[in-house]
Amino acid sequence: MFYHVKELQFEAKPDRPDPLLAKKMQELIGGQYGEMSVAMQYLFQGWSTRGNEKYRDLLLDIGTEEIGHIEMLATMVARLLDNTPVEAQEEAAKDPMIGAILGGMNPQHAIVSGLGARPGDSVGNPWMGSYITSSGNLLADFRANLNAESQGRLQAVRIYEMTDDRGVKDLLSVLIARDSYHQNQWAAAIAELEEKEGLLVPSTFPREKERLDVAFTLYNFSQGEESSTGRWANGVSIDGHSEFKYENRPQPEAPKPQLRPAPPSTHNTLPMDKNSLL
Amino acid sequence: MFYHVKELQFEAKPDRPDPLLAKKMQELIGGQYGEMSVAMQYLFQGWSTRGNEKYRDLLLDIGTEEIGHIEMLATMVARLLDNTPVEAQEEAAKDPMIGAILGGMNPQHAIVSGLGARPGDSVGNPWMGSYITSSGNLLADFRANLNAESQGRLQAVRIYEMTDDRGVKDLLSVLIARDSYHQNQWAAAIAELEEKEGLLVPSTFPREKERLDVAFTLYNFSQGEESSTGRWANGVSIDGHSEFKYENRPQPEAPKPQLRPAPPSTHNTLPMDKNSLL
Amino acid sequence: MFYHVKELQFEAKPDRPDPLLAKKMQELIGGQYGEMSVAMQYLFQGWSTRGNEKYRDLLLDIGTEEIGHIEMLATMVARLLDNTPVEAQEEAAKDPMIGAILGGMNPQHAIVSGLGARPGDSVGNPWMGSYITSSGNLLADFRANLNAESQGRLQAVRIYEMTDDRGVKDLLSVLIARDSYHQNQWAAAIAELEEKEGLLVPSTFPREKERLDVAFTLYNFSQGEESSTGRWANGVSIDGHSEFKYENRPQPEAPKPQLRPAPPSTHNTLPMDKNSLL
Amino acid sequence: MFYHVKELQFEAKPDRPDPLLAKKMQELIGGQYGEMSVAMQYLFQGWSTRGNEKYRDLLLDIGTEEIGHIEMLATMVARLLDNTPVEAQEEAAKDPMIGAILGGMNPQHAIVSGLGARPGDSVGNPWMGSYITSSGNLLADFRANLNAESQGRLQAVRIYEMTDDRGVKDLLSVLIARDSYHQNQWAAAIAELEEKEGLLVPSTFPREKERLDVAFTLYNFSQGEESSTGRWANGVSIDGHSEFKYENRPQPEAPKPQLRPAPPSTHNTLPMDKNSLL
Amino acid sequence: MFYHVKELQFEAKPDRPDPLLAKKMQELIGGQYGEMSVAMQYLFQGWSTRGNEKYRDLLLDIGTEEIGHIEMLATMVARLLDNTPVEAQEEAAKDPMIGAILGGMNPQHAIVSGLGARPGDSVGNPWMGSYITSSGNLLADFRANLNAESQGRLQAVRIYEMTDDRGVKDLLSVLIARDSYHQNQWAAAIAELEEKEGLLVPSTFPREKERLDVAFTLYNFSQGEESSTGRWANGVSIDGHSEFKYENRPQPEAPKPQLRPAPPSTHNTLPMDKNSLL
Amino acid sequence: MFYHVKELQFEAKPDRPDPLLAKKMQELIGGQYGEMSVAMQYLFQGWSTRGNEKYRDLLLDIGTEEIGHIEMLATMVARLLDNTPVEAQEEAAKDPMIGAILGGMNPQHAIVSGLGARPGDSVGNPWMGSYITSSGNLLADFRANLNAESQGRLQAVRIYEMTDDRGVKDLLSVLIARDSYHQNQWAAAIAELEEKEGLLVPSTFPREKERLDVAFTLYNFSQGEESSTGRWANGVSIDGHSEFKYENRPQPEAPKPQLRPAPPSTHNTLPMDKNSLL
Repeated sequence: MFYHVKELQFEAKPDRPDPLLAKKMQELIGGQYGEMSVAMQYLFQGWSTRGNEKYRDLLLDIGTEEIGHIEMLATMVARLLDNTPVEAQEEAAKDPMIGAILGGMNPQHAIVSGLGARPGDSVGNPWMGSYITSSGNLLADFRANLNAESQGRLQAVRIYEMTDDRGVKDLLSVLIARDSYHQNQWAAAIAELEEKEGLLVPSTFPREKERLDVAFTLYNFSQGEESSTGRWANGVSIDGHSEFKYENRPQPEAPKPQLRPAPPSTHNTLPMDKNSLL
Repeated sequence: MFYHVKELQFEAKPDRPDPLLAKKMQELIGGQYGEMSVAMQYLFQGWSTRGNEKYRDLLLDIGTEEIGHIEMLATMVARLLDNTPVEAQEEAAKDPMIGAILGGMNPQHAIVSGLGARPGDSVGNPWMGSYITSSGNLLADFRANLNAESQGRLQAVRIYEMTDDRGVKDLLSVLIARDSYHQNQWAAAIAELEEKEGLLVPSTFPREKERLDVAFTLYNFSQGEESSTGRWANGVSIDGHSEFKYENRPQPEAPKPQLRPAPPSTHNTLPMDKNSLL
Repeated sequence: MFYHVKELQFEAKPDRPDPLLAKKMQELIGGQYGEMSVAMQYLFQGWSTRGNEKYRDLLLDIGTEEIGHIEMLATMVARLLDNTPVEAQEEAAKDPMIGAILGGMNPQHAIVSGLGARPGDSVGNPWMGSYITSSGNLLADFRANLNAESQGRLQAVRIYEMTDDRGVKDLLSVLIARDSYHQNQWAAAIAELEEKEGLLVPSTFPREKERLDVAFTLYNFSQGEESSTGRWANGVSIDGHSEFKYENRPQPEAPKPQLRPAPPSTHNTLPMDKNSLL
Repeated sequence: MFYHVKELQFEAKPDRPDPLLAKKMQELIGGQYGEMSVAMQYLFQGWSTRGNEKYRDLLLDIGTEEIGHIEMLATMVARLLDNTPVEAQEEAAKDPMIGAILGGMNPQHAIVSGLGARPGDSVGNPWMGSYITSSGNLLADFRANLNAESQGRLQAVRIYEMTDDRGVKDLLSVLIARDSYHQNQWAAAIAELEEKEGLLVPSTFPREKERLDVAFTLYNFSQGEESSTGRWANGVSIDGHSEFKYENRPQPEAPKPQLRPAPPSTHNTLPMDKNSLL
Repeated sequence: MFYHVKELQFEAKPDRPDPLLAKKMQELIGGQYGEMSVAMQYLFQGWSTRGNEKYRDLLLDIGTEEIGHIEMLATMVARLLDNTPVEAQEEAAKDPMIGAILGGMNPQHAIVSGLGARPGDSVGNPWMGSYITSSGNLLADFRANLNAESQGRLQAVRIYEMTDDRGVKDLLSVLIARDSYHQNQWAAAIAELEEKEGLLVPSTFPREKERLDVAFTLYNFSQGEESSTGRWANGVSIDGHSEFKYENRPQPEAPKPQLRPAPPSTHNTLPMDKNSLL
Repeated sequence: MFYHVKELQFEAKPDRPDPLLAKKMQELIGGQYGEMSVAMQYLFQGWSTRGNEKYRDLLLDIGTEEIGHIEMLATMVARLLDNTPVEAQEEAAKDPMIGAILGGMNPQHAIVSGLGARPGDSVGNPWMGSYITSSGNLLADFRANLNAESQGRLQAVRIYEMTDDRGVKDLLSVLIARDSYHQNQWAAAIAELEEKEGLLVPSTFPREKERLDVAFTLYNFSQGEESSTGRWANGVSIDGHSEFKYENRPQPEAPKPQLRPAPPSTHNTLPMDKNSLL
């Protein structure tokens, strides 16, 4: 169950309106790695955690925080959209800078949301449930989380570089700092789990059931051998179970596949060649 | 530029047809973490790599291999769909097992693809470009890759447990082994980069530009303190820059936001209360 | 900013596992009118409200409550998925009831989410940001909200009728009651706004700017005159501005459109007929 | 069965081409609340209506009219795209106004549709079947319809304000008038049904089956009490069944949920803590 | 502008309800090649046709007919859903055939649409505007149309084979016949245009601007030479401009690409190798 | 199984960076008819081909070539994005041409992909599996392929006209040439199959099972008789089976449909009129 307080976790006030920047900030709200994604990802992971209260609590801590991040960004976007030139202004339209704004802003900010934030990304794609990951395996999911915070911080940093607006930079400097903590935090949680379970997800599948003869080899499917010099092709495997190998010209193991004809009621093309009769 | 050989990398032949299993195997082809995703993810990352030939080569090696994995799975799905009961069979339909197949199979396997594989997942969602990640920052992307191989191996293992078909299990034991290698491999590549760059992505953003006072703290937004006992709330931060902190009752820093009225031409609801006049 | 408490707003415990019911319950989580939709819809509306604190507060009250509803439903789905037959059981598979479950359940509940809830609907479509509405005009949006609560209650009632599980019915009886309140509540808010602004959204557009001669007429575009007997074709218009009219055989007002040829650089088909030269 | 006449219901001719306006007008064709949505929504509702010929007729009347509205808008967009600068013009490109057009227009209007309308919205999202609502319950659906006409008129009004083009304004003044009528009309139909059935959708569910003790209360989940002063928290409920209540600090009713461990074959993370053994 | 008549173009009455068949029939309504696709495709093509009244008329003729096909199929689906077991029936649920229905039917038919048709396909994906094609080039689009009618007839035939229901077969025998006509018709229109314009789309692009040395060659990128025996590798090209060639081992023409480093403000990974300095 | 060589099939180097052109080029990578579509379409068709080695080989030849086309375009996009103004430049932003770039470019090229290509189209929609067609019927699918190459060449030609960049034009002149060949090639394959099977897809469905009385008629559903003069309404049908007919005012064959009431547990609106009792 959730409670809301009206105050913002951190201030979200730009120095001046900027509808082009508002469009870009949408990536941090409703993009693949925006705050809607991390909020929903952590909450669904938390709600599905079976036992493991420490991790469940952690997930719900952070998931709840991230809803407040959507809130700050939605507030920022609404303010960046103040004074947007939504009215026909024959004179103004001749001003090339206003022309660039009218051409470049997200038209749905004016037509659909009435100068409010949209639940989508910087090109207008709606946020989708398929952005998030919740598998029931915590080590797998914490890797998803570390990735999400890495991509998220990278995107926030890029927008930080794109603007001179001090108010926007102030909010971004907070979001970047929180993404720093969250990278630290998921790295810590991953280290804890890897120490117990080892490198491989899932750790509970008996390794003798996999084809171990092909489990430690880099196949050189791309001509050129630059990749042969990496750690991944030399020395003990990171999981400690064997030695890495490098195979320069991988060969197919199975013959050319031949498929049986389909039953007549599918009305597929019938085989016209003799060797297709199996 | 790519070449194709007709032989399969590994055999892809089930013991017997099974349209319900064919539906499930689609997750490994066109699901969020299926082979279409890793193939496209590694290729786009490789094609966008600027310098860093060793990593570009590695990405193209693996991306190319993964196209061959889609091929094996598409072949397997086509064979699992052999003999699917696509014809009206009044008698057969009274057989409850056939009824379960007719009810449970993916109807598009019969109506749309003519007993061939579909470019989608186990519930029929089409594969989407928004599943993949390619950011230009290799450490960020290798974390995405490690996550993808973790989720992918987990899903393959789960399907392995769901079937007794030896031929399907043989293919899965290969895919699971390759996912093991790829987890090892991305872990090695990540270790290499983290040694150079440190934990945080991106490493090139000056940390004094972020709000360092909020960069090491776990906020307890979810009542209950189970998460306070984790490594992420105690000791030196993983990035080595400071000490982790735990804040039991985080407080908002900024006042309740008040937004200016929108211009009349948006035809938003006008403010009716005095305190909304800023 | 948000806080979370670990206890559930209401109990969410089924009498017994039922993976088919778990699939259906997803509609209430991530369907077009599920709890993800109302939570996000009310929060985005609240965050975008300019002035009008009473309504902003109301929206944030309810939006926050709805996140807790997702939580209860996610918990319920996880419990309905307990003991799901995810393992190959050659004997069991011959049991037609188990066959129906294996055929009918959402395969992603087993393969992807590890017996946890999914951020999608009952056929597996991911939740989308394009389900929600937030326009900046409160009367418009409260109508969206009244509709959402009507569709939502209808769907919850239908699932209530589909099951004998007392625990599921208990949770549904709560959700249905809350949807009752929310219908009442949005109806009250709508009445308040309509009293001030009148029926039409937006109320601020000068009516003389619209073609008033076509603003009160039902056009009978569908042969048959059953619709002519409704209130909408007789008497004073609901907005009080004029009389409703009924036009039995509406006629076009404008000539057949003819479009100019496209410039050659589009490589459209060139006009071959004389009368296309405008 | 449908017939088409070549003449347009109303004229659709702009004063002059304007590719940026063409991009915006797409919202009215293929946006969430564009004409494709209302056409398909009313037709699917009509085709699914069981009995109730008066309402079925009404739905088919309006649904058929709306297809003609798509036609007018598609014609308008094609004409707004006349003379679009689709050819490389080295000199022209130095003109900042042309630069703004080239930067701001929808590139698919030039590359994909050859200066014709697209079945999508103003940012290029394709129209989706999930925009529409057809539930079999007419009161629910008429509320969806009233909302659709409210959002639709609001968007048309906003675009009206954005342009000085008299021809575009003329078409919009018609669409706005029709949306006025349709708001009137659905309001009339809703009043008729509410008089028979009461406020709540669905009216046929026995209210004693819901948790009536929580069916009339506004929960203050969002700190601050502005919302307590509304009609929704005071007096007889709109449905007339009880009194509205306001609960200032809602408390959870159910304990913290604990989920059973998943079966080993899911390869979820195993519980590591004692209190997870249920 | 459109008119509707209440009678159906052809009868749409099944012999008996069948919710599993209703699910399959959705493919013909809202699938990639369902009636929503052809209706919208032909109408958008018609509305965008510039001049060429004969083709514009043809497109609007057929597009209008196809809306009536959606209507017949929606009526059929509603009738196939009569008597669907939507109520909990403890006894009935033990009947494996009812179990197969409950497991196999589209749950949204019961929960969302109240036993009416859905605007989506047989697995529940919503119909999308991106299914349709309208390019402004009629020869290109008529090829899209011939393909659509080919895929559509194939799917209708497959469902025809899947059922014994005479009423459903009667409707399908009509739809199949209309698809036959439409294949004939688009083939006739294509022949007419190809006679004027030749084989290649677009015909107006000067061929000397393309790399004619690579415009007639089949590259054998897939090891094995079966494809070398086809007409496409031997003799005069179909467009009559040259001779087909076969190249057994195509070689790359351009060197390995090397990309410049990105500017520091993108925070991409910096090049670590010397040969990446361009 | 696939191999990759590092060299490009053809050169992909623009004369100068141009982020607006990069945005447009995305249509050729990840649009409905971009290279991702044809690569995946041909590969899935090839992998599903049952027998018919000549066609399977052809499909895999071309599908493999097309992956290399994605590679060239991704390389081109990365180079067009060199030097993109991603940094805040207060002075530069006053330059209207830079303003147009900042407003017009795809913001995800800067924020998400770090100046690399995206797996989506020119407005930012992600590529989708639902773009492709693979039915098991080769004649149907080769028509899909001929259409894809027609639309694809048309789009490449349009972009060719939009730019003066010689390097981009060089690559496009290659892609246009390959699309020419592929149109030729699919036309050849279609001719071969039509000679064997006749015009109609599928050829294996006995024609007496369709309603032959409605299989040769153009219905004039769109008022005006321009279409009556086409080949499709006169003379022997293209399939040679009958004579084309033209019906000027098609009449419905079946009565107005009336649907039975839904069961009470759906909570649909109950029929209120007498004539709905069937």
